[in-house]
Amino acid sequence: MLEVKNILAGNQRAGARMIRLIEDNDPTVFGLLKELYPHVGHAFIIGITGSPGVGKSTLIDALISEFRKLDKKIAVIAVDPTSPFSGGAILGDRLRMQRHATDKRVFIRSMASRGQKGGLSRATKDASIVLDAMGYDIIIIETVGAGQADFDITTLAHSTGIISIPGTGDGIQAVKAGILETGDIFIVNKSDKPDADASVYELKMMISMRKPPNLKITRETGWTPRVLKTIAQNGTGVKELADTFLSHFDFMKKNNFVDQKRNAMETSYFNSLLQDLTLKKLLLLMKNSKEYKEVLQKIQEGSIDPLSAAEHITSKICIFENND
Amino acid sequence: MLEVKNILAGNQRAGARMIRLIEDNDPTVFGLLKELYPHVGHAFIIGITGSPGVGKSTLIDALISEFRKLDKKIAVIAVDPTSPFSGGAILGDRLRMQRHATDKRVFIRSMASRGQKGGLSRATKDASIVLDAMGYDIIIIETVGAGQADFDITTLAHSTGIISIPGTGDGIQAVKAGILETGDIFIVNKSDKPDADASVYELKMMISMRKPPNLKITRETGWTPRVLKTIAQNGTGVKELADTFLSHFDFMKKNNFVDQKRNAMETSYFNSLLQDLTLKKLLLLMKNSKEYKEVLQKIQEGSIDPLSAAEHITSKICIFENND
Repeated sequence: MLEVKNILAGNQRAGARMIRLIEDNDPTVFGLLKELYPHVGHAFIIGITGSPGVGKSTLIDALISEFRKLDKKIAVIAVDPTSPFSGGAILGDRLRMQRHATDKRVFIRSMASRGQKGGLSRATKDASIVLDAMGYDIIIIETVGAGQADFDITTLAHSTGIISIPGTGDGIQAVKAGILETGDIFIVNKSDKPDADASVYELKMMISMRKPPNLKITRETGWTPRVLKTIAQNGTGVKELADTFLSHFDFMKKNNFVDQKRNAMETSYFNSLLQDLTLKKLLLLMKNSKEYKEVLQKIQEGSIDPLSAAEHITSKICIFENND
Repeated sequence: MLEVKNILAGNQRAGARMIRLIEDNDPTVFGLLKELYPHVGHAFIIGITGSPGVGKSTLIDALISEFRKLDKKIAVIAVDPTSPFSGGAILGDRLRMQRHATDKRVFIRSMASRGQKGGLSRATKDASIVLDAMGYDIIIIETVGAGQADFDITTLAHSTGIISIPGTGDGIQAVKAGILETGDIFIVNKSDKPDADASVYELKMMISMRKPPNLKITRETGWTPRVLKTIAQNGTGVKELADTFLSHFDFMKKNNFVDQKRNAMETSYFNSLLQDLTLKKLLLLMKNSKEYKEVLQKIQEGSIDPLSAAEHITSKICIFENND
């Protein structure tokens, strides 16, 4: 397929086109992804998460510059609705981000939700397959940590950085939201603000107390999460951050954790594909069924409630495993 | 059931307990909701949406005061991760919101995502059933508009208010995000800022150009969306906003659109229940199957890609409609 060849050759226009198809939930995407899949596995995928206002985009902008100094090819997927990348913020920010726009070895894309219900995580994974196949060395996925229920960054990224800023009690929020357990690198940004050292101390305390890994995803043992201070605005601490991400990836490779992680990521992807395909197939079958129409009619008449109706319909579903 | 009786009697502690069970995805919830369902249908449900920083919580706080003057019982569900209600913002804001805390006829709850993937919309609907059954006259659902892919406010609320602030180009963002089509009332908050009138004009222009209703949900015709200016901070315009929400509901009732809307909301709820129950059942069956385990093994060995594997498994699923 011509399009697949172009993507594998790293053609940015072809990549952008494919990502748009993914966003649009285009039926050709599945086949294209199957063609690309044998060519992935090269990229180091970094997840960057944090509440709105902590400076994610500015920090990523600075990180891009650092990685470029190491001659890495970088791609960014922004799935944060408040991000300048994805068009959510004020024009000034958006323009500022454009300084990498002329760099052919940097590729920035935003993923809009466009109403694919619950599909943002899937779409992001699909996009990361495209970027990996295009030959990017590093893929950064930017996301708002909290509130995106359908989005588990650890199933998409090798290494996860969690950004907070001093004095917001974000550390405690992180514990509540359960993201403390998922971070490999904690970044206290805007660290020229008062209380930066207190935030670092607080995070270190909480990391030292965090429970032994009991995550769904097999988590490497032996890596103590780092806590780093940065001032994204002027680049302070960003080189160290870039190095720490790279050394985390090295650590994983040396200890064979990249394979473990890949298995966990693939299992998660497989399960989400399975859910999607299953739902599509079943809902199509059901919505064409007499049963469904009858029960919907009863709901509208008020003779059955939606809960009982759903229970009734579901009881009619069967599976057989025919080993043909 | 004692708990159901307490909820129907409007007991706030029982209501809070039930909402916590919903958040925790507790297996007893389904049965309790079935008991409550015959008692819902009284409440006027208002959706309030807008980007972080537009002042949603402050405006809702002021709206509560207005509705209280009309002696309405009010409940608020905050599903916005950046909302003070849901604990996402700075302490000062959170304290400010507490001024209704001693009012027994006001009940404020936040819905945390707690990792129920894609279930935030379902959980919010479930919670609104509880609040409706408790006898609240008005239920306000607060949500961030963009980025919550799994969240379609129009399937949960009778009336949707979309908040923006002057000079952010939010109007254009609204068109892009497709939420322009879903708003019944547009609110330009912080309207003491420059460009407020330009924002009002821009919104009115876009409303006048909006396409004829082609939404999934049957939308009432004949209601021209209002554009109102408010300054939530000092209450300016909030009385008019409260009145406009109530007159929109009156308009719907007079024109029999409340029934239409209820049908659309119930169909949507039924479909989401059906999806959940179906997925739960199928995934359980599949994950215990030999087929699933074999294919997962092959993925890890690299002899099949996750996409082809999911396709293979899905092809094994069948449904029969046995009319017992």
